[in-house]
Amino acid sequence: MKYSYVSHLYCPKCSETYSTDAEHHLCRCGSPLLVQYDLDSLKHHLKKEQLQARNPDLWRYHELLPVQDEQYKVTLGEGMSPLLPMPELGEDMNIPKLHMKDEGTIPTGSFKARGAAVGVSKAKELGVGELAMPTNGNAGAAWSLYAARASIGSTIVMPIDAPKITRNECAVSGANLYLVNGLISDAGKIVARAVERDNLYDVSTLKEPYRIEGKKTMGIEIAEQLGWEVPDVILYPTGGGVGLIGIHKALKELQALGWIDENRMPRLVAVQSEGCAPIVEAWRKGDREAPFWENSSTVAFGINVPKALGDFLVLDALYDTDGCAIAVSEDALLEEQKTAASLEGTFVCPEGAAAFSAARTLRNKGWIQESDRVVVLNTGAGIKYPDTVQIDVPTLQPHENLYDTKENEHATN
Amino acid sequence: MKYSYVSHLYCPKCSETYSTDAEHHLCRCGSPLLVQYDLDSLKHHLKKEQLQARNPDLWRYHELLPVQDEQYKVTLGEGMSPLLPMPELGEDMNIPKLHMKDEGTIPTGSFKARGAAVGVSKAKELGVGELAMPTNGNAGAAWSLYAARASIGSTIVMPIDAPKITRNECAVSGANLYLVNGLISDAGKIVARAVERDNLYDVSTLKEPYRIEGKKTMGIEIAEQLGWEVPDVILYPTGGGVGLIGIHKALKELQALGWIDENRMPRLVAVQSEGCAPIVEAWRKGDREAPFWENSSTVAFGINVPKALGDFLVLDALYDTDGCAIAVSEDALLEEQKTAASLEGTFVCPEGAAAFSAARTLRNKGWIQESDRVVVLNTGAGIKYPDTVQIDVPTLQPHENLYDTKENEHATN
Repeated sequence: MKYSYVSHLYCPKCSETYSTDAEHHLCRCGSPLLVQYDLDSLKHHLKKEQLQARNPDLWRYHELLPVQDEQYKVTLGEGMSPLLPMPELGEDMNIPKLHMKDEGTIPTGSFKARGAAVGVSKAKELGVGELAMPTNGNAGAAWSLYAARASIGSTIVMPIDAPKITRNECAVSGANLYLVNGLISDAGKIVARAVERDNLYDVSTLKEPYRIEGKKTMGIEIAEQLGWEVPDVILYPTGGGVGLIGIHKALKELQALGWIDENRMPRLVAVQSEGCAPIVEAWRKGDREAPFWENSSTVAFGINVPKALGDFLVLDALYDTDGCAIAVSEDALLEEQKTAASLEGTFVCPEGAAAFSAARTLRNKGWIQESDRVVVLNTGAGIKYPDTVQIDVPTLQPHENLYDTKENEHATN
Repeated sequence: MKYSYVSHLYCPKCSETYSTDAEHHLCRCGSPLLVQYDLDSLKHHLKKEQLQARNPDLWRYHELLPVQDEQYKVTLGEGMSPLLPMPELGEDMNIPKLHMKDEGTIPTGSFKARGAAVGVSKAKELGVGELAMPTNGNAGAAWSLYAARASIGSTIVMPIDAPKITRNECAVSGANLYLVNGLISDAGKIVARAVERDNLYDVSTLKEPYRIEGKKTMGIEIAEQLGWEVPDVILYPTGGGVGLIGIHKALKELQALGWIDENRMPRLVAVQSEGCAPIVEAWRKGDREAPFWENSSTVAFGINVPKALGDFLVLDALYDTDGCAIAVSEDALLEEQKTAASLEGTFVCPEGAAAFSAARTLRNKGWIQESDRVVVLNTGAGIKYPDTVQIDVPTLQPHENLYDTKENEHATN
């Protein structure tokens, strides 16, 4: 039996096809490329029950991944993140069946590891020597660390304002790391010039077709963890939107395999910040592509993407599933981060907090029903963004007792 | 079949026994208490092969955990962390069969979550309303977050120098958090006074018998992941030493169950920093207890424990397994952290780096053989300690190209 049932690359815009045995980036029409599998054949060779005995990482789905020879698998043990019931937070927002898919427990502390694991593995299979990418932080951290694991060189360019921890992760991996006094779009232009000049392997978001394949495993895992059922709603914090595109693609593939009900899709929700909401604007107008969002800004750095190359694929997924797009305020997402931690002990990243906040709003509006089973994607660990938590903690001297400080404060008030 | 085969608590010093149905902390002789299971009965009711179909978290071993009623289980999905081959680093230090047990991918970013999950669950089963503890950071983060998950209050006291990220984790959980202008021993005294005054549940290291049970699952997992074999050597960064005590206890239990060879134990290695090495000093002298280490200091904050309540249990484990204790320098562990990241893509915490550095030294000395299968415990994510990575990154203006900066530097040098 084959390790991978990958068939070819195809363009979702012009339908052109390409081989997965050679390096390809964008279609010649300019669109991102997607990976096609031989699902008819796979359907006859693999039953979903066979997965149960496999290791709890994303490579349990290797037939649905593009790496053809297992020897090129580059892994840090990523995948099969917990799908946690959130009863207290669910009660607080009147969504009894609220769940969180927690990507904070993935290597490198964010869901970016999934894309990097599969993307770097495929790069290794293709014989790549050095990859290059612009990043808002987490993706660069993941790709540079997985590249190190694969003994592939990496060049990473990130905005000077990107989270400092991700800068350290890239640096410690031994990457060629540069900061840019600008936005990720400026970083992207610098990388594009370097790719051209030095023949580097461009792994910018969606300029490389295999990252989606890693991200889609979130969708497969949600289905498997729910006993091969899909929830009613999945909320996803959306910057580049690769995870949402991937989850949609995964569920379509599972339907084609007959592993989930072919008539049921979860309504997919793209969650953005009010400071950067191009997908929301496009969805409200019913557009097929999103505008460039000027002067974007949000503490949820991972969803600060003013123009996504895959915007049309994100919008397709929303329209196809009767989903929606929604923007939340900075105050609301920061408040939700605290609420989730104090009610559930889950320190989610600001992007994940945005998705929880959106669930609360959509429930208030009646778009989410009380009976809906709802899955929120928390895309990373809160510890990667320590500065979003503003704290004021009393300091004691060794001879003091608890509450002495507070009592003193009260006395002087 | 029973959910837990817990039998009772016993004192490893004076053999006194206590019930697990009531709150107990230290033995009246002052020693920590250990948990005993009815292994003879369990042996006849559970085969290790039955575990395979269970979820990939530490609760798969629930018969060997102290929580008697599953409804009290408090979980964030902790456990079954990856056991990763480290071929490149292994080649670099001439240990071909080098592995890392990566606790950086556990909820809260450190192995402390295991102890907290089991300890908080048992506290919930015992009806505890509020717990209290001193911490060097990670334990407080884990316990306060799990307490929030369990709807139990928490009071946490940590040194003002503890890692800022862990301070934020405690704060966001809603804990009653205090800093102390001193060491963890000062924090401990403040907590002891508060426990006395306010009748809080004391979960200080080893003053609560169930944390060991959570930590021991690292040992069970290593055995299961190696197909129910044990490695030749396990290296463990040792502060309070609870994990090492737990791993030793777990392997003894697995031997009693007949799940692993009763004649093979890995040699256990306690790794400390030269800035705080009381266990190493005691082991060198063949002592049964360790001295208080004056003016302790290390960047590996988690192993800055000048006097461990369980020192005698750690030393027992070393003597029992023909293990050893070794101290590494601050420079060596920081260098090893970089080497591990650049060769393997693994951003380990400084404590984990200390353990890798110790493996290198022990191999050089011949104490570790080339043929030995060696497992290094990385107890947490490197991202929790960003300041250990010193970086100097070039900053570009948007119009600049990669290497421009370096070229400029070269030009002006």
